[in-house]
Amino acid sequence: MSQAPQAPQATHDTQAPQTPGKRQAMADHATPLVRNAWYVAGMSGEINRDLKQRTLLGKTVLMYRTLAGDPVIMQDRCPHRNFPLSKGRLDGDRVVCGYHGMNFTPDGQCVFMPALTRAPSHVRIASYPVVERSPLVWVWLGDPDRADPALVPETPWLSDPAYKTVNGRFHVRTNYVAMHENLLDQTHFPILHAGTGIGTPEYSRSTMDVRVDGDRVHLVRALLDAPAPDIYGIPARLKDRIVDRHSDGWFASPALHYAHARIVNKAPRAGERIEYRYTITHVYTPETQGTIHYWWFNSRDTYLDDPETDRFLVESSVKAYQEDVDALGWIQEVVERETEPFEELSFGPDRPGIAMRKILLRLAEAETRDAPENQAAA
Amino acid sequence: MSQAPQAPQATHDTQAPQTPGKRQAMADHATPLVRNAWYVAGMSGEINRDLKQRTLLGKTVLMYRTLAGDPVIMQDRCPHRNFPLSKGRLDGDRVVCGYHGMNFTPDGQCVFMPALTRAPSHVRIASYPVVERSPLVWVWLGDPDRADPALVPETPWLSDPAYKTVNGRFHVRTNYVAMHENLLDQTHFPILHAGTGIGTPEYSRSTMDVRVDGDRVHLVRALLDAPAPDIYGIPARLKDRIVDRHSDGWFASPALHYAHARIVNKAPRAGERIEYRYTITHVYTPETQGTIHYWWFNSRDTYLDDPETDRFLVESSVKAYQEDVDALGWIQEVVERETEPFEELSFGPDRPGIAMRKILLRLAEAETRDAPENQAAA
Amino acid sequence: MSQAPQAPQATHDTQAPQTPGKRQAMADHATPLVRNAWYVAGMSGEINRDLKQRTLLGKTVLMYRTLAGDPVIMQDRCPHRNFPLSKGRLDGDRVVCGYHGMNFTPDGQCVFMPALTRAPSHVRIASYPVVERSPLVWVWLGDPDRADPALVPETPWLSDPAYKTVNGRFHVRTNYVAMHENLLDQTHFPILHAGTGIGTPEYSRSTMDVRVDGDRVHLVRALLDAPAPDIYGIPARLKDRIVDRHSDGWFASPALHYAHARIVNKAPRAGERIEYRYTITHVYTPETQGTIHYWWFNSRDTYLDDPETDRFLVESSVKAYQEDVDALGWIQEVVERETEPFEELSFGPDRPGIAMRKILLRLAEAETRDAPENQAAA
Repeated sequence: MSQAPQAPQATHDTQAPQTPGKRQAMADHATPLVRNAWYVAGMSGEINRDLKQRTLLGKTVLMYRTLAGDPVIMQDRCPHRNFPLSKGRLDGDRVVCGYHGMNFTPDGQCVFMPALTRAPSHVRIASYPVVERSPLVWVWLGDPDRADPALVPETPWLSDPAYKTVNGRFHVRTNYVAMHENLLDQTHFPILHAGTGIGTPEYSRSTMDVRVDGDRVHLVRALLDAPAPDIYGIPARLKDRIVDRHSDGWFASPALHYAHARIVNKAPRAGERIEYRYTITHVYTPETQGTIHYWWFNSRDTYLDDPETDRFLVESSVKAYQEDVDALGWIQEVVERETEPFEELSFGPDRPGIAMRKILLRLAEAETRDAPENQAAA
Repeated sequence: MSQAPQAPQATHDTQAPQTPGKRQAMADHATPLVRNAWYVAGMSGEINRDLKQRTLLGKTVLMYRTLAGDPVIMQDRCPHRNFPLSKGRLDGDRVVCGYHGMNFTPDGQCVFMPALTRAPSHVRIASYPVVERSPLVWVWLGDPDRADPALVPETPWLSDPAYKTVNGRFHVRTNYVAMHENLLDQTHFPILHAGTGIGTPEYSRSTMDVRVDGDRVHLVRALLDAPAPDIYGIPARLKDRIVDRHSDGWFASPALHYAHARIVNKAPRAGERIEYRYTITHVYTPETQGTIHYWWFNSRDTYLDDPETDRFLVESSVKAYQEDVDALGWIQEVVERETEPFEELSFGPDRPGIAMRKILLRLAEAETRDAPENQAAA
Repeated sequence: MSQAPQAPQATHDTQAPQTPGKRQAMADHATPLVRNAWYVAGMSGEINRDLKQRTLLGKTVLMYRTLAGDPVIMQDRCPHRNFPLSKGRLDGDRVVCGYHGMNFTPDGQCVFMPALTRAPSHVRIASYPVVERSPLVWVWLGDPDRADPALVPETPWLSDPAYKTVNGRFHVRTNYVAMHENLLDQTHFPILHAGTGIGTPEYSRSTMDVRVDGDRVHLVRALLDAPAPDIYGIPARLKDRIVDRHSDGWFASPALHYAHARIVNKAPRAGERIEYRYTITHVYTPETQGTIHYWWFNSRDTYLDDPETDRFLVESSVKAYQEDVDALGWIQEVVERETEPFEELSFGPDRPGIAMRKILLRLAEAETRDAPENQAAA
């Protein structure tokens, strides 16, 4: 399993002295969504021979799979009379509009209209670049000229047979900025997650090393000689044992956050391993400015075939993430409701989140600047 | 029974060679509603001695019937403190406000206020011109100076004893433009209505003759030597028999579409008639820009007293129209949700609808131009 | 029990000759809410050791009570990451944010943040001036420099042991202007309340004396030698007996209307009192521009310990006020729905309401003029 490389030229920044709360130029819930990025449209298993409608980045699309098994994501609007194509049907690989029967091939080309003797071959609709990396189907909804498959974030652990992955899904009333910040923020663990096994007090006091690597943020933490939190300890059969925890988190793109955790068994007993690995993956796709599709994955390299461990990891993940989902929903309610000018105050431990929010602001501003309507004529 | 006359000077236009999809200047879901027209406020039977509230063209009105039986349609807002008069009561022919008891006669004149010793005779509210042509009550919500009863569209078949009419009603999430276009469009029959008896494949391939007659569109179609579709064949006891179908459809006004169908029995058996007549009437009254009150009527000149035929026609009409209602609701959802610039592409068979949409655009633009706020001072 | 003093210099205005309906410059449902006023945030019993969220004047606040019993009303938004503090918890007198654990004292001062070794002492949130006059807790949401406790309206009868008070609460879809006007308006009684005991016909014909006293309106009415309405007659055991009624109503502030009623027993029987006193108190706190929190109180000086009288007064008050609540909800629906220009017509009996609406307009306009963004730089 590959790990994302650490850029040697990255900015290095250790825990800064505590400074007063500051106001920062950074993305927030109202910043335009970054469009030139690969986002997950759905799980491989969700996209099949049914026509499925979903809203992604505020755009409503149609998803299906060809007879050969390739996922297709198209504009869900017939260019003739606005009928949602997802209410039509499939004829082989073609989408057939349910109103007048216009036929579109997977690339968006109109190839047949029953009432016309010749197909209107000049008619095309948007078909979006798609890359499937099972179990994820990625889509590019921005400028199609920039849709480079090489930019699809790597998540090899999700299909690596050396790992067992459990997963789940939420629909959250939040903007993706707050969700990404939540994951780069270790100081909320002992408060928001006080009641769940993931929030040990030591966690918030561990040192952290934040590196900005281009458009990514890398967060390295180590917590040595402390009891294993249940979410790592129980699957490894190391409950309450003293371990070292090494965590390696990445804001990998507007669509993705993942964290590799390495648990080192400090006093291995007979037959025990010394090291256990986990990767937690969080996939966010903005549905609208204020809602997201959220998929999470917990991958482990131990007790792969144990259904009890699967069940434990699903239950404890859902319990903990539900606390985040609730909190971020309440926050979104506040920022949507309150209309008076308000700027958040930030503190030292917010550095990873701020680094990410500056990246999202920079990317969003560049897209606004490059938008055709903002370009001077040649 | 009279038929609307065909204007001899009307533009004549046979099936044009298929041209590429084109963008046209024509009314769509966002075009202001035409106000200077007679619209159906309700069925005669709906308007009675109860005060009934209804929204028509975005205006909320009050409807009732005088002791003498005349329908009254008034502004549903007391000019004193905004109380909805429909929450008050009738006292003879007068509406009594439920808050302070102001009395209004059917013409909108205030004639009594309990707290005042003299009625405030300068107070009037809007009472709209009404014409009852049973079973329809028509109202004029535009410029009252232009409310000419002679302009009320004729629908004599609805009260002609030579015909039996069944009818029904829908509340549809759509703009009237899309609904009118649906009726002038024969190419959706075999697709949208594939599962119901009205969508025989021959239908979409029959020739059509489109005439624009002032503010009306006349669509003449003939389909010869083909099996009778169930909706005509079963009531006439001609199921699966070969007939000629002559159809004569009219976009008669922003409020009304009707079609006269003549079914010719090509091989009459003993005791059978040679000709059977049907008229299908569609009445649309915009409730708001994006919703309509829709009443439909199916009138036939055969088996007038047969309840089984009534039942069959109601069931098959509702089944087919529900498909249109669903489709137009989905389309309305699309056009309301999508905010990017988008123009529909049109093709040869869309000519009747386009002719109608150009008329609605012309009427709407003339009203905007003539609006008092757009007039220069004398 | 004290009564609010009558200003000798007040404008005096008896029933004017009936003039045609006029349009007036006065506050309506769209006038900005007056912010520089004491409003009731809640009943004393509602504010306790739970964190309670409520929206007042469009601002969402957090309410609780310190260990010493003092009510606290604060901004319900953490300045760090927008978490609603009402979803956190109390630690002694401090509010602890549920996301990162920031601690705030009742005055809004941040005194602890778990992730920081030193508290960010420059961080404060809004804590609003509060005055408790049991059973009411008053709050000042406007300019804090003008929050003078001496301006809290006096309602001594609510805690006077010589009186027994029953009370209730409504959440109403209305603006406070319409609600205040409803109370200053005696002509709606026989119409809107025709079915309840408070609407005797004599009521609307009694003379009234309207005085404007600064920012208050005083309405004096006397109705002599008439049968007692049930709502006064039954509690005093004077049902259907002839009494004099003296009513002394006050628009006391944007937040408060009260009326003192004196019932004089014209033919006292053995053991009967000559005079009975009631005070009806109406407390309005705008939640938003179009909704209010409404608390009502009925205080009497007779049969203090009779639960049957309590029950009767609650039931008949709720029945009558529900009619107002329904009517004002319908009116609010009308004024929110209708977008065409419209001005209410007013008549002689509307004078008390108009006087109040002119005051509210003047106060609102002064606040707009004084708002920092409307001040020229020095």
